Amino acid sequence: MTKILALFLALLLPLASPALAQNTRDPLPSWNDGPAKQAILDFVAKTTKEGGPDFVPYDERIAVFDQDGTLWVEHPMYTQVIYCLDRVSVVAKEKPDLKEKEPFKTVLSGNREAIEKLSWDDLDKILSATLSGMPVDQFQDEVKKWLKTAKHPRWDKAYTELVYQPMLEAMAYLRMGAEYKTYIVTGGGQDFVRVFSPLTYGIQPEQVVGTAEGTKFSYDKSGRPFLTKEPKLLLNDNFAGKPEGIHMMIGRRPYAAFGNSTGDQQMLEYTTAGKGPRLGMLVLHDDAKREYAYGPAQGLPDTKVGTFTQALYDEAKQKGWIVISMKDDWRRLFPFEPLPPQNP
Amino acid sequence: MTKILALFLALLLPLASPALAQNTRDPLPSWNDGPAKQAILDFVAKTTKEGGPDFVPYDERIAVFDQDGTLWVEHPMYTQVIYCLDRVSVVAKEKPDLKEKEPFKTVLSGNREAIEKLSWDDLDKILSATLSGMPVDQFQDEVKKWLKTAKHPRWDKAYTELVYQPMLEAMAYLRMGAEYKTYIVTGGGQDFVRVFSPLTYGIQPEQVVGTAEGTKFSYDKSGRPFLTKEPKLLLNDNFAGKPEGIHMMIGRRPYAAFGNSTGDQQMLEYTTAGKGPRLGMLVLHDDAKREYAYGPAQGLPDTKVGTFTQALYDEAKQKGWIVISMKDDWRRLFPFEPLPPQNP
Repeated sequence: MTKILALFLALLLPLASPALAQNTRDPLPSWNDGPAKQAILDFVAKTTKEGGPDFVPYDERIAVFDQDGTLWVEHPMYTQVIYCLDRVSVVAKEKPDLKEKEPFKTVLSGNREAIEKLSWDDLDKILSATLSGMPVDQFQDEVKKWLKTAKHPRWDKAYTELVYQPMLEAMAYLRMGAEYKTYIVTGGGQDFVRVFSPLTYGIQPEQVVGTAEGTKFSYDKSGRPFLTKEPKLLLNDNFAGKPEGIHMMIGRRPYAAFGNSTGDQQMLEYTTAGKGPRLGMLVLHDDAKREYAYGPAQGLPDTKVGTFTQALYDEAKQKGWIVISMKDDWRRLFPFEPLPPQNP
Repeated sequence: MTKILALFLALLLPLASPALAQNTRDPLPSWNDGPAKQAILDFVAKTTKEGGPDFVPYDERIAVFDQDGTLWVEHPMYTQVIYCLDRVSVVAKEKPDLKEKEPFKTVLSGNREAIEKLSWDDLDKILSATLSGMPVDQFQDEVKKWLKTAKHPRWDKAYTELVYQPMLEAMAYLRMGAEYKTYIVTGGGQDFVRVFSPLTYGIQPEQVVGTAEGTKFSYDKSGRPFLTKEPKLLLNDNFAGKPEGIHMMIGRRPYAAFGNSTGDQQMLEYTTAGKGPRLGMLVLHDDAKREYAYGPAQGLPDTKVGTFTQALYDEAKQKGWIVISMKDDWRRLFPFEPLPPQNP
């Protein structure tokens, strides 16, 4: 009988071992021990505990993540804006009258200082001219091609390598360890982010909600249907547009929301106003040495891109949202870095 | 050694048997044997055969279904329109000036003949007045409550019971037997359909794409954020709006599309214009005895709701889309009916 039992156990063990290994492995190795890491572990533990008071049904498990500054580097400028600035010369070849028009003339001049001084209104004109007018397939090919060659000046790495390893781990843990559906909810262009989100974040296009312009259905000469990107804004997925976009694209309130700026305020408010356990987290960029430091919360420098106000910081403290200190809470920043020892 | 082998097999068998049973059970019992049923079986077989020429990667497996007339009964009028007509009296209590305005006055008169003669423009006014202006949560509660009591006059059944069992089987087979993500892509209101789609179809809100109006984020007196439904059309999910909506909400081309009217034409064109194996299917309502008969394709009566033109029928034949004859291809229509013998 002992022999049979031993055999039985030997046969079962290979099936059981992955689960055992998972329970003992740290799912968030790139986070230093502290309140931010603990908040994620606690949230997963209580919302997945069957029969517990905070159990969340599987179908309702939705977690949303801002992208710029939350999942990847947004300084000195949003990656999509850099893409659009790079595209101006291509678009100007097709539409030569743009060459003499501002703000395109400034961009084509190559004068860095002047380009950095362009207003958000100017940048909006550049985005509109470079993100619409082409077939959807062509746009996707152009973005793919650009991402392969463009590099961030500080690290000399592709932009898709400058993603935060701690957030990749948090997303993977929510997704695989707790069966949450993870969504990106970004002020960036939905079509732009969808191009690289599957390989960069493991997030499929249908789980990317972003600023969205319309498309137009038509037929080519051979009668084959195709979609053209139109300069018609359907969703401005920033500030109040984030919960509005979540309602349109997902249709229900998330249980967890991650952001890093005032553009994420309403998304966190909407998420954490729901009944039951909710998690709101904000990345504070307080790490000039390893990345950038900007606020102006907590006396950090006020910069053009990614505003984290003191009012947002105070609201976080008051509402129980967790502020992630990049300096203190993240053991390493990028996947290409080695894992240093835990902070004391 | 034989003993050990026998024990080994005995231990493995319970693990293997569900898969064996699945392979021998008919996944589409409510379909008569014929080209329509066979087309679904063939599509699943070839797109899931690993290493085969028509294999579709898991992440790309998307199947889209129109709702009205494809998944549930749309005659004598779309269910959502009946809901809106029923709501007019409630809305008129809140906004008494509507009582003297057309088309509301006609609806409130209760004169059936006059109501049936209302134009689509009139109905649009009624939809707009009854589907917006309230908080999202309140709207969902109202629809839920209505669905519990409202009955279809012909069958005296709840509208959510009047779903086509063969399509429920096709959806479940694609979803569970072949790991397709199944989406509803409906001309009906996205918020309306999302209320009942999880329990009725096993389709979660985030996989319902429909005609969508915007919402507005604001705070109540206690500072709690909420969303109000606004009369601002973002997506008219009909005709060319269907592929446009698919691009916005899903972000890639489906492999299979099911519809029943000219409103689904562009969705089927877009779906089947993709490379590799694609499946396009159209339900033809040619069964006046068990349901309704309308076209005007194939000489069927031309009715107000759900137009299947001869041109669409001809396009289907030319493009290799499968026309499902309700009369011939569906062995039973509704889940509450017993399963009759196979057609000879």
